[in-house]
Amino acid sequence: MDVIVNAAMSADGKLSSRRREQVRISGDADFDRMDAIRAAADGVVVGIGTVLADDPSLTVKSPARIDARRGRGEPPHPARVVIDSRGRTPLEATVLGDEADTYVCVSKAAPRSRRDKLAADATVIVAGDERVDLPRAVAGLEDAGLDRLMVEGGGELIFSFLAAGLVDELRVFVGPLVIGGRDAPTLADGDGFLDDFPELTLEDVTRLDDGVVLSWTVDDSSRV
Amino acid sequence: MDVIVNAAMSADGKLSSRRREQVRISGDADFDRMDAIRAAADGVVVGIGTVLADDPSLTVKSPARIDARRGRGEPPHPARVVIDSRGRTPLEATVLGDEADTYVCVSKAAPRSRRDKLAADATVIVAGDERVDLPRAVAGLEDAGLDRLMVEGGGELIFSFLAAGLVDELRVFVGPLVIGGRDAPTLADGDGFLDDFPELTLEDVTRLDDGVVLSWTVDDSSRV
Repeated sequence: MDVIVNAAMSADGKLSSRRREQVRISGDADFDRMDAIRAAADGVVVGIGTVLADDPSLTVKSPARIDARRGRGEPPHPARVVIDSRGRTPLEATVLGDEADTYVCVSKAAPRSRRDKLAADATVIVAGDERVDLPRAVAGLEDAGLDRLMVEGGGELIFSFLAAGLVDELRVFVGPLVIGGRDAPTLADGDGFLDDFPELTLEDVTRLDDGVVLSWTVDDSSRV
Repeated sequence: MDVIVNAAMSADGKLSSRRREQVRISGDADFDRMDAIRAAADGVVVGIGTVLADDPSLTVKSPARIDARRGRGEPPHPARVVIDSRGRTPLEATVLGDEADTYVCVSKAAPRSRRDKLAADATVIVAGDERVDLPRAVAGLEDAGLDRLMVEGGGELIFSFLAAGLVDELRVFVGPLVIGGRDAPTLADGDGFLDDFPELTLEDVTRLDDGVVLSWTVDDSSRV
């Protein structure tokens, strides 16, 4: 399994303000860059917090890229994957629409009734007791034929993927603004590391829009 | 007054772990870059949190740079400036040593007895009632002949300088590791901005050590 994390952060490492309202960090060129990564993925992964806050579609926007996927015998869009320990994805969420396949990864803490309702519009993968066991969920996605995942966030999910040693590449657009705030979501939240910090190798630096894209590989990540 | 903020952060925007222990983010080349900025400054500014956590000296390390300062008729080191609303700088703190001049900026909330003790080893500037009023403190430093300030952090102080519109340049080394943690200190903490985010212009991108230095100017900063 190959896992790319892609995100846009402010110059001080924030994904949005402390109110978790979307902030325009990047521009059209970065949006297109993100669309290309999506189009190359088998699955686009977000946390339940992102679904609740932004109700994204996670689909490919470029008609040319959609055509290219079809030409390769792939579905027009990558599958949407929601990491959702308690099964809180709203039944009217855009990711449950029929534009693309959807996987909702839940833990056993998700009520059976929620799992059944979600199963009407998505494939439900149960992994873990109280929280989603990410290595098992990722193994389940691989069993379903998804070999290339793009993780879009938020910061809690990105930290969990890194802590599980599941990330191969980290691509970060750093935008020309400061968001600030000790309570604002950052690129990698969670409990944080205290030692054995994941080490990175800087593979590429490219100026884009009014910011810069830093492309890192994660050293010694475990591979599922 | 010219104000440069300089800091080293992890790829996810953290200055240290949630335990606030120092993490080696950059290498020798970035340390030398920082030393050059210090040597060009009249004053090096830190928050009381940094003094309590790290007990830094804030002096110039390069003998050649110290000689160059002397050759220009300047003191061998820039002045040390501590922003310390309640006058908590320990009397044995390294910044109070006699290697360089020291200013401790306090508010009226700092007990008179503390101010008097600090005044034995430093120039005490009183600005603000409960917290240091940064524009007034900076004006006081300018009155004392300091025209170029380098702000080294931490994240609370950097946010306060940005919120006060006092920052002209932001130079950030982004290092090859992830620290993570929703409670870890970031480049700009404080309450954060909710709108009117300070906008930046990316002036330079330079790979250094195993990371990259992003040099931003702050658009429309007010000048004291």
